[in-house]
Amino acid sequence: MLLQGITEGNPAVQRRAMAKAITLLESTRADHRLQADELLTALLPHTGRALRLGISGVPGVGKSTFIEALGLYLIEQGHRVAVLAIDPSSTVSGGSILGDKTRMERLSVHERAYIRPSPSSGTLGGVAEKTREAMLVCEAAGYDIVIVETVGVGQSETAVHGMTDMFCLLQLPNAGDELQAIKKGVMELADLVVINKADLDPFAATRAQSQIQSSLRLFGQHGNPEHAHHDESLWQPTVVQLSALQGQGVAGFWQQVSRFWQLQTDNGRFAAKRQRQAKSWMWERIEAGLRQRFRDHPAVKAQLENTTDQVLQGRLPASTAARQLLELFH
Amino acid sequence: MLLQGITEGNPAVQRRAMAKAITLLESTRADHRLQADELLTALLPHTGRALRLGISGVPGVGKSTFIEALGLYLIEQGHRVAVLAIDPSSTVSGGSILGDKTRMERLSVHERAYIRPSPSSGTLGGVAEKTREAMLVCEAAGYDIVIVETVGVGQSETAVHGMTDMFCLLQLPNAGDELQAIKKGVMELADLVVINKADLDPFAATRAQSQIQSSLRLFGQHGNPEHAHHDESLWQPTVVQLSALQGQGVAGFWQQVSRFWQLQTDNGRFAAKRQRQAKSWMWERIEAGLRQRFRDHPAVKAQLENTTDQVLQGRLPASTAARQLLELFH
Repeated sequence: MLLQGITEGNPAVQRRAMAKAITLLESTRADHRLQADELLTALLPHTGRALRLGISGVPGVGKSTFIEALGLYLIEQGHRVAVLAIDPSSTVSGGSILGDKTRMERLSVHERAYIRPSPSSGTLGGVAEKTREAMLVCEAAGYDIVIVETVGVGQSETAVHGMTDMFCLLQLPNAGDELQAIKKGVMELADLVVINKADLDPFAATRAQSQIQSSLRLFGQHGNPEHAHHDESLWQPTVVQLSALQGQGVAGFWQQVSRFWQLQTDNGRFAAKRQRQAKSWMWERIEAGLRQRFRDHPAVKAQLENTTDQVLQGRLPASTAARQLLELFH
Repeated sequence: MLLQGITEGNPAVQRRAMAKAITLLESTRADHRLQADELLTALLPHTGRALRLGISGVPGVGKSTFIEALGLYLIEQGHRVAVLAIDPSSTVSGGSILGDKTRMERLSVHERAYIRPSPSSGTLGGVAEKTREAMLVCEAAGYDIVIVETVGVGQSETAVHGMTDMFCLLQLPNAGDELQAIKKGVMELADLVVINKADLDPFAATRAQSQIQSSLRLFGQHGNPEHAHHDESLWQPTVVQLSALQGQGVAGFWQQVSRFWQLQTDNGRFAAKRQRQAKSWMWERIEAGLRQRFRDHPAVKAQLENTTDQVLQGRLPASTAARQLLELFH
């Protein structure tokens, strides 16, 4: 029923079915989880045809404005656009600051757009899992562009990078920003860097563009043999300028995305990346499950604090402590 | 017996006891592991008083020459020096390129020095664990400076950073090198950066020094609130020049290390870091143990390949696959 509503329903039915499905996926009840797994498995053949686009950037860089401009542009081109979010702060506060519909007034009311805020509790891994699953629901419902946004703090960028086909980093036209991104290792994840608000200071924007472009080139040459020798069949990370507020540069941005999409499909990296992502995702969830069970095991639970104290006080070697606790877990 | 030999023996007895103990710690036999854990626990009260110094740098930067010069200098000052190594390539090849005694001819024959090559097999985590344990043996034997070296490739730097009190990065006097270190996130780990071979091009060395110093300052200010406002009681990562081959700058290097040691002891960060390291080490080994048990579990083993294939072929959602495999593990 839910499956049919998602894949075949008229717009209103579909929207209700999607919301219901995502609520089911986010439920922590054990019987819901079984139903959710059945639903996911049934949805799977209807998924995988969308482009998954990750978008990150620090607060104030203009992500909402950019995503709204991009979403409206894509709808005009005939696409259907879903916007999901991973908000690392939601795992602490239990409330979501991202993805709320008031930020994207025009996009959120459009019938060809679907906006869903970040799941609002749990570990980052748990939030990421729910977002990945919501992505499958959107794809099964025929949304062919799925945007996953996150703020440029914490490790959420790595999570978004791990579930999307292309990772775009929004930057302001100043160099401090660039160094921060390099330092945090986010620049290295980027397939495309977008300098937003370029109209405010065209000179600074152009300087930032050339600086970032040369950083990206350096990363590519030294760090990643994939990008060596400027092989024409391989994507070279690149930088574009735009002004989301003025609506300038969105078409140029999309041109780069399309070129990436085509190139990566032709050279086989698109499919290979998705396989890698699925496998890492499986292992990430296995490891999270193992840790949880370990901590919940009665004998471990009874001993963990005491053993940890002994390690902290230097009375028990850490590796011995680990082996003792693992014995209890048997 | 072994314990007594390590802590009280004359030089020849002690050296034999240390070698025997480390061999025991590296053994994979289950009964040996029990004995090894007993030995470690007994050694523990005799450990912890040494300074643990991590040294990293890419091949060709002159690590052996530097460590030999430093070791001989420290022995002259009345210290006893142990040199251990983590060689990430050894986990692949089963052979160790690091720490072999022929590289440090004068230091290796000195009776107040103890040099041990990298453990030569297993995962990086396993190799790191054996090195951590060997460190305890050296400390119990009265070596008051323990140097752990690694090459600047792979993730071995993080492992060395996680087991030492101070992490030093050796660099050549050129900017490409610096960018590589920033990119890989190693620069951020460094408490002290050493520009070696400074005599070859004093001008380049001085330029590199000031560039790296300003990068370190930027990291500190933006990324790490610890280092903000240049609080006098806190260590500010710094850069020194030296020429290990000419024996120039070793005393200046040691002056910085001593200043670090004093400052971190006074402000309590020295002890706090060791506690953090012990706790992470415990959890790292627990997680490695859980993964190993999971993979070895008969029901999981029988199903893992098939489930992985289904995930790769897009017939099973990764999170569902993880839950199914975790069920089998019950």
